[in-house]
Amino acid sequence: MQHIENDPAYSGLTVNSGVAQPPVVNPYLKPRRRKPLPSASEMVEGILKGDVTTLSRAVTLVESLSPAHQAVAQEIIEKCLPYSGNSRRIGITGVPGAGKSTSIDVFGLHVLNKGGKLAVLAIDPSSERTKGSILGDKTRMEKLSTHPGAFIRPSPSAGSLGGVARKTRETIVLCEAAGYDNIFVETVGVGQSETAVHSMVDFFLLIQLAGTGDELQGIKRGIMEMADGIVINKADGDNIDRARLAQAQFRSALHLFPTPESGWSPEVLTYSGYYELGIPEVWDMIDRYFDFVKANGFFDRKRAGQARYWMYETIDEQLRNNFYRNPQVEQRLASLEQQVLSNTRSSFTAARDILDFYASLR
Amino acid sequence: MQHIENDPAYSGLTVNSGVAQPPVVNPYLKPRRRKPLPSASEMVEGILKGDVTTLSRAVTLVESLSPAHQAVAQEIIEKCLPYSGNSRRIGITGVPGAGKSTSIDVFGLHVLNKGGKLAVLAIDPSSERTKGSILGDKTRMEKLSTHPGAFIRPSPSAGSLGGVARKTRETIVLCEAAGYDNIFVETVGVGQSETAVHSMVDFFLLIQLAGTGDELQGIKRGIMEMADGIVINKADGDNIDRARLAQAQFRSALHLFPTPESGWSPEVLTYSGYYELGIPEVWDMIDRYFDFVKANGFFDRKRAGQARYWMYETIDEQLRNNFYRNPQVEQRLASLEQQVLSNTRSSFTAARDILDFYASLR
Repeated sequence: MQHIENDPAYSGLTVNSGVAQPPVVNPYLKPRRRKPLPSASEMVEGILKGDVTTLSRAVTLVESLSPAHQAVAQEIIEKCLPYSGNSRRIGITGVPGAGKSTSIDVFGLHVLNKGGKLAVLAIDPSSERTKGSILGDKTRMEKLSTHPGAFIRPSPSAGSLGGVARKTRETIVLCEAAGYDNIFVETVGVGQSETAVHSMVDFFLLIQLAGTGDELQGIKRGIMEMADGIVINKADGDNIDRARLAQAQFRSALHLFPTPESGWSPEVLTYSGYYELGIPEVWDMIDRYFDFVKANGFFDRKRAGQARYWMYETIDEQLRNNFYRNPQVEQRLASLEQQVLSNTRSSFTAARDILDFYASLR
Repeated sequence: MQHIENDPAYSGLTVNSGVAQPPVVNPYLKPRRRKPLPSASEMVEGILKGDVTTLSRAVTLVESLSPAHQAVAQEIIEKCLPYSGNSRRIGITGVPGAGKSTSIDVFGLHVLNKGGKLAVLAIDPSSERTKGSILGDKTRMEKLSTHPGAFIRPSPSAGSLGGVARKTRETIVLCEAAGYDNIFVETVGVGQSETAVHSMVDFFLLIQLAGTGDELQGIKRGIMEMADGIVINKADGDNIDRARLAQAQFRSALHLFPTPESGWSPEVLTYSGYYELGIPEVWDMIDRYFDFVKANGFFDRKRAGQARYWMYETIDEQLRNNFYRNPQVEQRLASLEQQVLSNTRSSFTAARDILDFYASLR
């Protein structure tokens, strides 16, 4: 795995768009030989052949903030779209310490041993702050990082959650077009990002540890109800009894929830990532889930709903950005917020005030 | 309780705004004698004196769709705002059949017997469709409906959830200014409205019945984690054992959730609304909650956060409305959505297309 965004050859990524642009030259640096980027069509061709270097380059374009790169990236995505969709998209979450990396490593190897290819992506909007907190360190996935069938890509560097999620979703399209038939999307179980991941995967796996109440502080409320499967890690040695108890507790808790829309009753299993125990059982569950939702039509319904969701989510985010990033709006809003917080202005007249102001700006 | 919105005297509600406006006269109808509405200041005076008729009229203005009424309503709300906030706002939810009405009736009477006044409001965005489904029929609350200290108001008639919730939140301000020191906000536990109610109350009470899994189908996922207290109704006669079992199950499930931000561990109690058993215990729990969150500062933090939330929520809703209610946008969006659903267009380029189109309209 190469971290292409840190590769100097890409630091000035130029696009062969047909329009010649004068390069920005720093006279104190020796000019670097720069491999020109292939055209969108050439890249699509490479992706469809499963060429990993081309795939990596395309993902780098997707993640680029440059409008020129974005334009090429969008062209590539549109062209890959008809070849996408043929994968199992699996979201994996769990608090730090639950053993996500080791688990993904062994789950991933199990999947690869059954044939096919695996892409491991991640969503962590905080990745700039805590550089390398998630998938940043490829040594965390020893087995997968050297496996020819695995493509590992860290979280796009920080931005709004919406932006990071969009890039990951677009990367899924490219990976699928390149023939990756299993996609893992990893996320940390502590923020808003689970909702984003949940909205782009078919199956949502929650990794838990034995423990109750305070020990689970880290995990966000509501995540348990999103899970299609809960797996309790570190069910080994002295810990087996605790893991089994946790399993019983989670099972009993899930009974109190209504059956999800999928009609699938989430299962609770125990395993050990470190000792590689119970891995096939976890994967059997996931296989059964896919059989189940493909048979009852939920699989397709969910995918269509997700595509629709991302369209509206993108629109809404942009509408908000246009508004909140307006410097005059920002300034006035700060003072209105103070009035609302001090109860001298109602939330609703404050909102009307700023909306009228915004309308007057245009 | 009068349903003023159905009172013919109010069907043409005119506002004494100082500006004379020619009335619209239908020559085939005899002119009705119409009591002119007092000015905003006069109404605020009446509200602060606790005059129920004035309060009802003001709420009717809040609920009115007429811009003239809305202007007066906003003036009244702003003037009442400094006198608001001195109540305990309690959200009450539960699936149909859980016995919400009977419970609110006995809980309400219990509260009133301790002194003070009680307003019972409701949020049910579907109320137009299922007229009278919630609080519509005052006979559902036998004891409260005849109690001089109770003010019962059905859900504002249908509209967007945001609109209905806004009106209820504004009504809370008016009720508090009128001296109601306990506010119940009832909602049905099946839709999006719980989130709205949760965002306007201090304490969120979930009424459950004994039963697991399929029997709880009706309740929305995620609601259990919003609850500050879960109370299991119909703990009487033959049903006591089942209710106690459910209590144990819910308690055990709650242990798997992290402690809420309030620091308060949600409690699970049993009671019988019909036989009026266990009512003081439920109320003691709520008293303890208020003592707890007032002592640790969460009460004020939550209220400030809610005021901020509603400001941003109102802004976002309006930004969306401006966009989605544009007829040209609506038309183009329908065709884009089809392309996204058929996987011929990515969610993101479809979003960009419609946003560019929207920008070109202005």
